[in-house]
Amino acid sequence: MMSLTEIIENLKSHDDFYILTHQYPDGDTLGSAFALCRALQLQGKRARVLCPDVIAPKYEYLKRGIKPQTDFEPKYIISVDVADANLLGRLKETYGGIVDMCIDHHSSNTGYAKCSYVDGTKAAAAEIIYEVIKLLGVDFDVDIASCIYTAISTDTGCFRYTNATPQSYRIAAEMMEYGCDAAQINRVMFETKSRAKLEIERQVMDSIEYYADNRCAIVYVTLDMVKKSGINDDELDGIASLPRNVEGVLIGITMRQKDDGSFKVSVRTNDGLDASEFCKQFGGGGHTAAAGCTVCGSLEEAKSSLAHAAESFIAGVTNA
Amino acid sequence: MMSLTEIIENLKSHDDFYILTHQYPDGDTLGSAFALCRALQLQGKRARVLCPDVIAPKYEYLKRGIKPQTDFEPKYIISVDVADANLLGRLKETYGGIVDMCIDHHSSNTGYAKCSYVDGTKAAAAEIIYEVIKLLGVDFDVDIASCIYTAISTDTGCFRYTNATPQSYRIAAEMMEYGCDAAQINRVMFETKSRAKLEIERQVMDSIEYYADNRCAIVYVTLDMVKKSGINDDELDGIASLPRNVEGVLIGITMRQKDDGSFKVSVRTNDGLDASEFCKQFGGGGHTAAAGCTVCGSLEEAKSSLAHAAESFIAGVTNA
Repeated sequence: MMSLTEIIENLKSHDDFYILTHQYPDGDTLGSAFALCRALQLQGKRARVLCPDVIAPKYEYLKRGIKPQTDFEPKYIISVDVADANLLGRLKETYGGIVDMCIDHHSSNTGYAKCSYVDGTKAAAAEIIYEVIKLLGVDFDVDIASCIYTAISTDTGCFRYTNATPQSYRIAAEMMEYGCDAAQINRVMFETKSRAKLEIERQVMDSIEYYADNRCAIVYVTLDMVKKSGINDDELDGIASLPRNVEGVLIGITMRQKDDGSFKVSVRTNDGLDASEFCKQFGGGGHTAAAGCTVCGSLEEAKSSLAHAAESFIAGVTNA
Repeated sequence: MMSLTEIIENLKSHDDFYILTHQYPDGDTLGSAFALCRALQLQGKRARVLCPDVIAPKYEYLKRGIKPQTDFEPKYIISVDVADANLLGRLKETYGGIVDMCIDHHSSNTGYAKCSYVDGTKAAAAEIIYEVIKLLGVDFDVDIASCIYTAISTDTGCFRYTNATPQSYRIAAEMMEYGCDAAQINRVMFETKSRAKLEIERQVMDSIEYYADNRCAIVYVTLDMVKKSGINDDELDGIASLPRNVEGVLIGITMRQKDDGSFKVSVRTNDGLDASEFCKQFGGGGHTAAAGCTVCGSLEEAKSSLAHAAESFIAGVTNA
């Protein structure tokens, strides 16, 4: 792995940068990319950001301050917050094998780039970008600050997840001093809900049923509910955490009806119960606290098999 | 107003403290009170916290480290985060007129105490308590840190509201270094919901009505809804932010029916609209983004006067 000093030397001695984000772009990959792009442009370099997918309108402000520079051939390819070349999506074919530098905070980084700087202790890749920009000697401004703040806030769930460190908070504080509107950013990222989302959440919570002595909660989203509410796929993201957040619930299950009539099942657990282990029974998998699987059958049939599985699973854990 | 130095001198030269919180206690008043109580006890003083209402179980950990000292007569009465003697609830009769020192962050503080230290720029009263504890020369420990962190996090909506300052973030970072479990605190404070709370939220969102071209949203909580759901007063806290979170809403109003039939009204605003200014029309007050007042009349009457006031208010701001 490269040292931060070598990273800086490489950035200083090169020009004509393409900065790549990962697919399904989030606040960290976008904030990191646009902050670095602006910093390089302020150093008199040519730089542009390439994102494999459409960037959601709510992230549009991250581009503020970026000079449109598209009419150049890249001489140095950088990826930010991209743990694996496969995550470059449609950019993989062209650039996957020729990334010169990767800056990332995933310990699982596969080392696909010619040189990498990976720090798994950072809550966000943008915390490394923050250091890079400091070392480049670029003055922070409100645009860079908004990018860095957004990246840290979104990757820590607004400073809620276990990954947030004192340094995450302190960088955020400094970015506020450079003028970023933290409250507005967090409002857009975390609070504001469309009326469609409110409506679907209400319906989802109406569907809640408790099993295993209230330690399992199951909710569902049918195609009909999605259609009637007019909600986007993107907005359905947070739904999966709803049943897990009910006091006393150990396994929260969200069933989402798919076009073929089967159910995409998201499982979220508390108190260390292994969601991945649970989902394996249905041919799925994932992480300890968050996993998924697919279940077929009618709504009632699918719900019933999940409920029974949850009852046995919880009984097994409780008796262990 | 007293200087911080005088506050410290007064704390050092007195003993046998009662520390009063406001009614419907929240994370800031409780965190401030218990942090100060522990700091004074660590200075060899006798101190206890008096809260006019039952403290919700989720706040129980704030008492960690407090020595039970109840067998003494108070010689010095302090109130924390209490803007008005009326907010002392059942403690008002006994102590309302004899508060020696008030430490608060509400600009609207009525000055009911013999001496006051009020700093309206602070996101939480606990940010002042943090300075007081520093100046007292007490070493922070995990218990004090958990109190201060909880107070700041809850009063800023987990660092989301406009009141959060860089200093709020930096104090939080320092408290994490003293060992407080920020992620766990935020999970308990912001994610976990009782079934009663889920149920009341559902009903509250069912009550939503839009005015002023969808820029004002009004919801209500009746005594009957509270009774049926079995929810605690404490759990009703977050309800006030629900209507403000709907996309496009500038003024979110939550009406809560009181025993005397009047409504306690919480107003939350977006985009810099002055909630305090709005509430003044009804004899209330507060902060820019969060304020309150009381409105009498039937549900429909009260709602109608609030809706009309909001329409004029938004029109006034928009035309200004």
